[in-house]
Amino acid sequence: MAHHSFVPTTYHRTLGPHEPALVIAPGDSVTTQTVDARGCDRDEQQVTDPGNPMTGPFFVEGAQPGDTLVVVFEQIVPNRRRGITSPRIAANVLEPGFRVRHADDIDECVWEIDAQSQTARMVAPDSSLSSIALPVEPMLGCFGVAPSGGQAISTATSSTHGGNMDYRRFAPGATVYFPVFEPGALFFLGDGHALQGDGEIVGTGIEISMDVSFHVEVVRDHPISWPRAEDAEYLMTVGNARPLDQCVQHATSEMVRWLEEDYRLEPLVAHSLLGQRVEYDVGNVFDPAYTMVCKIRRRLVEQLSTGAAAG
Amino acid sequence: MAHHSFVPTTYHRTLGPHEPALVIAPGDSVTTQTVDARGCDRDEQQVTDPGNPMTGPFFVEGAQPGDTLVVVFEQIVPNRRRGITSPRIAANVLEPGFRVRHADDIDECVWEIDAQSQTARMVAPDSSLSSIALPVEPMLGCFGVAPSGGQAISTATSSTHGGNMDYRRFAPGATVYFPVFEPGALFFLGDGHALQGDGEIVGTGIEISMDVSFHVEVVRDHPISWPRAEDAEYLMTVGNARPLDQCVQHATSEMVRWLEEDYRLEPLVAHSLLGQRVEYDVGNVFDPAYTMVCKIRRRLVEQLSTGAAAG
Amino acid sequence: MAHHSFVPTTYHRTLGPHEPALVIAPGDSVTTQTVDARGCDRDEQQVTDPGNPMTGPFFVEGAQPGDTLVVVFEQIVPNRRRGITSPRIAANVLEPGFRVRHADDIDECVWEIDAQSQTARMVAPDSSLSSIALPVEPMLGCFGVAPSGGQAISTATSSTHGGNMDYRRFAPGATVYFPVFEPGALFFLGDGHALQGDGEIVGTGIEISMDVSFHVEVVRDHPISWPRAEDAEYLMTVGNARPLDQCVQHATSEMVRWLEEDYRLEPLVAHSLLGQRVEYDVGNVFDPAYTMVCKIRRRLVEQLSTGAAAG
Amino acid sequence: MAHHSFVPTTYHRTLGPHEPALVIAPGDSVTTQTVDARGCDRDEQQVTDPGNPMTGPFFVEGAQPGDTLVVVFEQIVPNRRRGITSPRIAANVLEPGFRVRHADDIDECVWEIDAQSQTARMVAPDSSLSSIALPVEPMLGCFGVAPSGGQAISTATSSTHGGNMDYRRFAPGATVYFPVFEPGALFFLGDGHALQGDGEIVGTGIEISMDVSFHVEVVRDHPISWPRAEDAEYLMTVGNARPLDQCVQHATSEMVRWLEEDYRLEPLVAHSLLGQRVEYDVGNVFDPAYTMVCKIRRRLVEQLSTGAAAG
Repeated sequence: MAHHSFVPTTYHRTLGPHEPALVIAPGDSVTTQTVDARGCDRDEQQVTDPGNPMTGPFFVEGAQPGDTLVVVFEQIVPNRRRGITSPRIAANVLEPGFRVRHADDIDECVWEIDAQSQTARMVAPDSSLSSIALPVEPMLGCFGVAPSGGQAISTATSSTHGGNMDYRRFAPGATVYFPVFEPGALFFLGDGHALQGDGEIVGTGIEISMDVSFHVEVVRDHPISWPRAEDAEYLMTVGNARPLDQCVQHATSEMVRWLEEDYRLEPLVAHSLLGQRVEYDVGNVFDPAYTMVCKIRRRLVEQLSTGAAAG
Repeated sequence: MAHHSFVPTTYHRTLGPHEPALVIAPGDSVTTQTVDARGCDRDEQQVTDPGNPMTGPFFVEGAQPGDTLVVVFEQIVPNRRRGITSPRIAANVLEPGFRVRHADDIDECVWEIDAQSQTARMVAPDSSLSSIALPVEPMLGCFGVAPSGGQAISTATSSTHGGNMDYRRFAPGATVYFPVFEPGALFFLGDGHALQGDGEIVGTGIEISMDVSFHVEVVRDHPISWPRAEDAEYLMTVGNARPLDQCVQHATSEMVRWLEEDYRLEPLVAHSLLGQRVEYDVGNVFDPAYTMVCKIRRRLVEQLSTGAAAG
Repeated sequence: MAHHSFVPTTYHRTLGPHEPALVIAPGDSVTTQTVDARGCDRDEQQVTDPGNPMTGPFFVEGAQPGDTLVVVFEQIVPNRRRGITSPRIAANVLEPGFRVRHADDIDECVWEIDAQSQTARMVAPDSSLSSIALPVEPMLGCFGVAPSGGQAISTATSSTHGGNMDYRRFAPGATVYFPVFEPGALFFLGDGHALQGDGEIVGTGIEISMDVSFHVEVVRDHPISWPRAEDAEYLMTVGNARPLDQCVQHATSEMVRWLEEDYRLEPLVAHSLLGQRVEYDVGNVFDPAYTMVCKIRRRLVEQLSTGAAAG
Repeated sequence: MAHHSFVPTTYHRTLGPHEPALVIAPGDSVTTQTVDARGCDRDEQQVTDPGNPMTGPFFVEGAQPGDTLVVVFEQIVPNRRRGITSPRIAANVLEPGFRVRHADDIDECVWEIDAQSQTARMVAPDSSLSSIALPVEPMLGCFGVAPSGGQAISTATSSTHGGNMDYRRFAPGATVYFPVFEPGALFFLGDGHALQGDGEIVGTGIEISMDVSFHVEVVRDHPISWPRAEDAEYLMTVGNARPLDQCVQHATSEMVRWLEEDYRLEPLVAHSLLGQRVEYDVGNVFDPAYTMVCKIRRRLVEQLSTGAAAG
């Protein structure tokens, strides 16, 4: 169970069967860095092209198609002072023909992160918003494994392999489960946000470079259909598709599978519990594939479970 | 500012320009009852046909098209011991072709409400779920005003006039704002749930009859496009449509209008604040029109507002 | 089998359980007129408010809930020289944020119909399009019966009862089948178009008043779920909903029901025939509910049918 | 302007920046073969894994990002006697919960192609459908270029680069235009159908191997956003996405760009012409991305055009 410190020198704008950047073993932990969505590092130097450049991939020894990769995020910490947002809600999030009333020539907003108070403040352009400091909630917008069938898929979008999901609870303390499609799983990560609203409706969180620590495990012979996750409060399943209705279908079906097959809930109990206690979160409604998360309080499931809680 | 006690004797399965059941004035409060979605009252007697029968309509004196009707829910309390749920997640919420694994012949589940502990427990059919008591969260699934253009719209669905939104925060303490389309607004209410998950994915909450208290106000010459609401924590706007993507468009556009036109936020501030702090909730993904709610913490908006906070 | 000449004096902007304008019997035919979508008659006089005002309703004696109403359109003929279109493709039909490049201040286009050559020509605003004469294809955009459950639904939209479907093959020679929800069925018609593209993407066809002749029949105890139609070439089923994907689901399911239950095709044959020979047409992608039509050449079905061809 | 005869020996299940199978020049023509969707060749021998294996890629000398690749299909001819279809309409094309009534254990249907009469007949399983011979309409379901950003995208789906569009007018005589994203464009083709209904609703056409002849051209410095096509009757633009509403948006926007930027129609004329004369076809409603085609009669456009008709 080694600990690796990894400093990236190359980046990827697709998740695919790329040359491993580092080989690690199940149980190993990694401390590394991610550049921001525009390819800028901790010194605000542009070190690679924009478009959610990824650190990695990390080849996990022994991970084989049909396994589940487990990634536990220990730390996700902004490693510089300034982050960037876009200034307008995306056209696809507003009614067709809705007229945005602020100037076309504003094309980005600058936020300053105060590491001590753990808050962010919008400092440019000048506006009343600079009077408010918002607590930061660092998260990773885009991460995942090499997709199925030898594909290489843009970090602009997402699917069964993860990718650009932009979901707020993918934060320190979250454990995320991915289906393994390629030998070694090939784990990528990047696109840090110091803060983000539901849906990433302006097309960005507060885009910033990050220091990240995580460790990995592998569950053998345990195929899953969509990413799963858990944290201290919730079990979560992720659907990435369009429209949101289809995200709901994938995420809900995957949750039923998880509760019935892994937690061994009777079907009637799984349906009835979800019926009265399920919650949904919007990941993103901006990217080519949208993201919706189905979640249920883990305590409820654990009270009812008669099986092992494999991810 | 009178207080009315109103016992319904007839019910409506459409929201439309129906004969007023009671005439009330702005400022008046009303205590009344609603039957459950199946038309059963506090004694579990079927007193009207099933299909979300509504109490009302209440004619609010002076309310005219172009005004906003304000409804403040003071109390929503189950008035009997037993509620009903459906036993399976609806086919449209699961992946096409997903096979539900429990028996076709189970067609309803019975829950008992414990008024003292304020919890609900599923008591039939027999299952492990009976070991858990869930705290109740009473709410109204369906309420609203007579729709635009002289329409009479089924209580199965929803639109700009409200209707069957099945949203969990429409609970005691919520203030809801509706566009007025008909003289007197014509307010209807019903479809109480002792508890409901996001999305109403089994097609029901815990369906139960309710005692309800509310009062009304009217904001003159203040047209709004979609229902708005607020409670102690949030400002909320509601989009009722399909797919969920369109709900997001309506709810988000209405929130921008509210923040810019009523709370007088600069457009750049409204967009940037929502971008990093908006939250979305799923009302229902079961009814003919789905419901998505856009919400923002009212404290943030009030800190930034330079205008009056009209609903 | 009487023939009625009916001159409307009042119009409806909802399809609902309204007072019959005329009582007719199965087998009867009717000759009548419709005003255009803006409420203007054959003399271009505004005789009622805009918004697809309907002629009718016609009460068909003996039609009961659970029956199918059959409407055969014999004649749909523009009864004046000028029609109107909107000048821009609707925002919801274009990519979010797409910028339309012509002037905002053009708000309608005028077309002249040449009755002799049966063509239409856009004569204002002045443009190169005036050099082309397009053959007219008269059709009715909005017609149908009183909806289910006592609803009154705006003529802006459509559902199981028909309504504003804006489908080009609803033209002279078409037979259309509707589920009967109210005693007498209550048939309404209007919204004539001298010509229309698929989807009604500018929000109008060439809007014009019409002379219409039709006759009606009733099929007893024959419930259908969605409108069906036929003409010399095709059997057609109609889905009215959003998104278009859901229209496809309704229209295709209704076609399978028609082929299996009425034409008595084996299920394997119905699926395999549709798989390789089905066609889809877009009715509208402009109205609150979109319309998609599923069609199959009637000759193919009739060759395979072992049952009676009830509508 | 060479003519190449190319016999494939390897196949790809992604469209991506793969090693060229053959280098050709603008103006060159190619005669080659495609295996069927299951990887079976003209002798019904399985020569590669199933999943729309592609012949190619063909590297077109001089094609650069920002150019348009022009592919003209001269011949698409089934090169064996038997084709395969799936026996049931896909669950996503039917109403949620719709029960298919034929046996689960039928998993494919066999069709025989009569080369002389150019017809197809379903010969197994035994059914009344064997009494009908349907004229074949050979087409290619999946073809396109290497996608943007170095992606490799599964032949199960489609996007701006083409892919698995399953559109019936991609038949002999069609010219198809693709945006070039990679040097040499890298053209792939396969997934032949002897016949297919709109939407590919059973998930297959009559799947068969093909002999194909095509030639290529390159339009320099002419970026397009979505595939375009033309044949003797129509100009066509293609949107590949979900839901169908989004396909309509892409296809319609691309048609407006084509008419305004290449055919130089005034914006008012482009909108008004499409408004009354546009047609939409469904490509597929089965694959992960659906396909909708926007088409307009080329004669109408050419009458109005004052510019050159570049693809």
